[in-house]
Amino acid sequence: MTITGKNLIGGEESGEGEATIFGFDPRRGEKLEPAFCEATPNEIDRALQSAQEAFEVFRAVSREDCAALLDRIASALNETGGELVERAAQETGLGTDRLTGELGRTMGQLRMFAGLVSEGSWVDARIDRAQPGRKPLPKPDIRRMLVPIGPVAVFGASNFPLAFSVAGGDTASGLAARNPVVVKAHPAHPGASEIAARAISRAVAESGLPGGVFSMVHGASPAVSLKVVEHPLTRAVGFTGSLTAGRALFDAAMRRPEPIPVYAEMGSVNPVFVLPGAMAEKAAAIAQGLRQSVTLGAGQFCTNPGVVVCLRGEEMRTQLRALFGESPAGTMLHPGILRSYEQGVSEHAKLGDVSATRGGEAAAARTEARAALFEVGAGGFLGHERLRREVFGPCTVLVDCAGREELEQVARSLEGTLTATVWGTEQDLAEYKGLLELLAAKTGRLIFNGYPTGVEVCPSMQHGGPYPATTDAKFTSVGTAAILRFARPVAYQNFPSSALPLELRDGNPLGIWRTVDGALTRE
Amino acid sequence: MTITGKNLIGGEESGEGEATIFGFDPRRGEKLEPAFCEATPNEIDRALQSAQEAFEVFRAVSREDCAALLDRIASALNETGGELVERAAQETGLGTDRLTGELGRTMGQLRMFAGLVSEGSWVDARIDRAQPGRKPLPKPDIRRMLVPIGPVAVFGASNFPLAFSVAGGDTASGLAARNPVVVKAHPAHPGASEIAARAISRAVAESGLPGGVFSMVHGASPAVSLKVVEHPLTRAVGFTGSLTAGRALFDAAMRRPEPIPVYAEMGSVNPVFVLPGAMAEKAAAIAQGLRQSVTLGAGQFCTNPGVVVCLRGEEMRTQLRALFGESPAGTMLHPGILRSYEQGVSEHAKLGDVSATRGGEAAAARTEARAALFEVGAGGFLGHERLRREVFGPCTVLVDCAGREELEQVARSLEGTLTATVWGTEQDLAEYKGLLELLAAKTGRLIFNGYPTGVEVCPSMQHGGPYPATTDAKFTSVGTAAILRFARPVAYQNFPSSALPLELRDGNPLGIWRTVDGALTRE
Repeated sequence: MTITGKNLIGGEESGEGEATIFGFDPRRGEKLEPAFCEATPNEIDRALQSAQEAFEVFRAVSREDCAALLDRIASALNETGGELVERAAQETGLGTDRLTGELGRTMGQLRMFAGLVSEGSWVDARIDRAQPGRKPLPKPDIRRMLVPIGPVAVFGASNFPLAFSVAGGDTASGLAARNPVVVKAHPAHPGASEIAARAISRAVAESGLPGGVFSMVHGASPAVSLKVVEHPLTRAVGFTGSLTAGRALFDAAMRRPEPIPVYAEMGSVNPVFVLPGAMAEKAAAIAQGLRQSVTLGAGQFCTNPGVVVCLRGEEMRTQLRALFGESPAGTMLHPGILRSYEQGVSEHAKLGDVSATRGGEAAAARTEARAALFEVGAGGFLGHERLRREVFGPCTVLVDCAGREELEQVARSLEGTLTATVWGTEQDLAEYKGLLELLAAKTGRLIFNGYPTGVEVCPSMQHGGPYPATTDAKFTSVGTAAILRFARPVAYQNFPSSALPLELRDGNPLGIWRTVDGALTRE
Repeated sequence: MTITGKNLIGGEESGEGEATIFGFDPRRGEKLEPAFCEATPNEIDRALQSAQEAFEVFRAVSREDCAALLDRIASALNETGGELVERAAQETGLGTDRLTGELGRTMGQLRMFAGLVSEGSWVDARIDRAQPGRKPLPKPDIRRMLVPIGPVAVFGASNFPLAFSVAGGDTASGLAARNPVVVKAHPAHPGASEIAARAISRAVAESGLPGGVFSMVHGASPAVSLKVVEHPLTRAVGFTGSLTAGRALFDAAMRRPEPIPVYAEMGSVNPVFVLPGAMAEKAAAIAQGLRQSVTLGAGQFCTNPGVVVCLRGEEMRTQLRALFGESPAGTMLHPGILRSYEQGVSEHAKLGDVSATRGGEAAAARTEARAALFEVGAGGFLGHERLRREVFGPCTVLVDCAGREELEQVARSLEGTLTATVWGTEQDLAEYKGLLELLAAKTGRLIFNGYPTGVEVCPSMQHGGPYPATTDAKFTSVGTAAILRFARPVAYQNFPSSALPLELRDGNPLGIWRTVDGALTRE
């Protein structure tokens, strides 16, 4: 496939603006052709207008047709999978094995939502039947279900160029709820974005749906992102990326005359607490696993463990110091991320009471980052706010505490996180119940004897935690519950059954789970 | 009971500030004793601090104990019901019959949430069991449920001094999710607020819970409200009131270093469309019902029908004009609301292409409002943005359209609403399907052949619509789903069953509905 460098507006190529965005091969330190056209305000407006027009049709498609669209997108990605993985590998420096796995996950997410939509119970149908004879007032018939909201804007992440990008979880869940989607492509992988976008547009066309169901615009300047968020037809925003960018989009959305929700997943420090029983049993194995989790993919995961907290952790310190010292450098996604990482690391290293161990040498020409381990006592950790903020990359802060009280103080000092992990024995769990409760209050996912990297895609997954991990801890961006971000309830009062959506009609023609007069039933 | 005029902080009376707030009897035009102390910043801080301390205990109470607290509050309200209704009637001018009914609803809401919490399935437990042998990676065990979020701030409404105030739906749903609640009392009924707050605090004490589970602060100045919203321990805000006040609190919450959700229900115009079939069959009866719905309680309902849209509605115009002309004046809640109403009405009347009919004379000394009917064509309605904004009180705007296209243009021009109503025959429903879809996209509740006033409290109720009706159309402030505003999911990965909350343990000891490996079950 020839990569055109154009935006894709309602299924049509468009390149009104200047071609100023280039992909970059971080492993070779080379700019990649072609140039991509930054979207103009007019193009963004057309994308949203065509999305709104498409919404009139798309909102009313059957569950089978909606599921078929999602399945077709998965198949279209599969067909173009070879070139998609190849281009993504060039643009991100991530290995083809990892990206092939990520492509599988991306298709899996689309098919998972196809299954969810096809089954149909996700709309949370609730029916309270009339009681005309009730005193003092008759009870009306009320029936409620979730409905789509309108055009959803999606901002893909640089670190998952497939699973959290153009055809990723936000797009899949937005479409699954029957909303048109406008993606603002991440400028770090514009070519892979185009390939994925064209696959989606093909699937939309093959499904006989209006092209406006999906658009993708390119943009490297904040003005493009702001224009997408501020457009009056945009109804919600999905975002994965940095705190700075996420908060800027959130603020813009809240300043609108009509504010819209922004579901921004902005990463976190993902603390790991190693309790005494576990330390005694297997410090070496935990250290090995932690080093791997911290340096996996050059540490470029939202769930990267950025803080490790031990109680009298001399052995853990010795182990980790040795492991990090011999840790090979890893290629980062692009030079900008590497610069931010190196700046974060050098600012940590400057702190007086922090000692640093760096990994093997890195080649700047290959955009490589050296791993880093910082060691600090509880007092030092509590005294430096910056140690409690995420540094995106292969580094972690090891906090060694003298007693339980310090452990709990460290836990209390943390901001909201995506995950919190505890290593322990069953006895540790019983003894440190208070710590577990502290952590549960700060996080979206609590992990026992594991590592936070690796996010299972399933109904029970919660990938979202208290701020600054996400802007709305009530929602997840991974798993089936992600669809709930892009739907809202509508109640119908006293309508004849024939005028209601199928989900709410008498006799339950779709056979879905419904709450009827307060009780769950499929009748 | 002697009304003290004090704030109630964690169960203790406190009056550090100046006693500057007075109740007012609108029917007599008289100030009511005693004076109430505006809360100081220190008192607000103590309320949130004690709420946070209480949270450590309250978050962990059993479902039985949480339900018992809600039932005890209902009983405590019942015990003090006589004086509560009497004082509320004095302070609001609402009749004792209406307020006795509202007290019943208030107790009913508390008992409804007690039932919901006692049954327990509302936590949306989801369990995905481990598959240790899965390739390429083992699947972990993940279990997720809704948990409380921490101190919730509640701002009561003036127009429902019981059901949407101190012990109203926001407080009930906040407590039901096991969050401490801090109420900022509405200064229009400070005495009724104190009586209700003391009933709640008594129930908290009888339940053996820390006093910080509930606090109430008085405040008439915006500084008190802002301080409550900006306090770092406040985790969410429930509000019912005006667009201006709701948006100010929303903006303050979004500007926080750590933004928190604000669920503000700010009213709407609640359009009523009368279609040709219904008009031919029963214009007179509909007009009668509309006049009653518009003037009920001096029009002081969030769901008051503020816009009525007809197709060639000569007969409806004649009927409504006669009915409004003879409509008696009604006492409003307080002089400030009456002034706003009169200003809104006089600005409507000044518009060139709008004709006005006013109801019977009003006595200023009794804080009475005259009903008002405005008649305008579709062109005039579309030309004046202010006609599409709510005027709180006994008035409505009758829009007469010449054809279907105008009808749809009027529907398209509307902002988000709490409700939209359609009067029609089954044939009208079939012929005006497009209009129904337009309205469903703008509203939270669509009503057929009824009136929007009267909000049933039940699982299927949706009292919340697109902005400016509410700040988050995904949520309702009435019905069991209101609890979802004050909870968030936490996932537990690979924990032994004994370390999990009961809701997530093997064997389902609570017998609740759970989604296990993707399927709903009680096993």
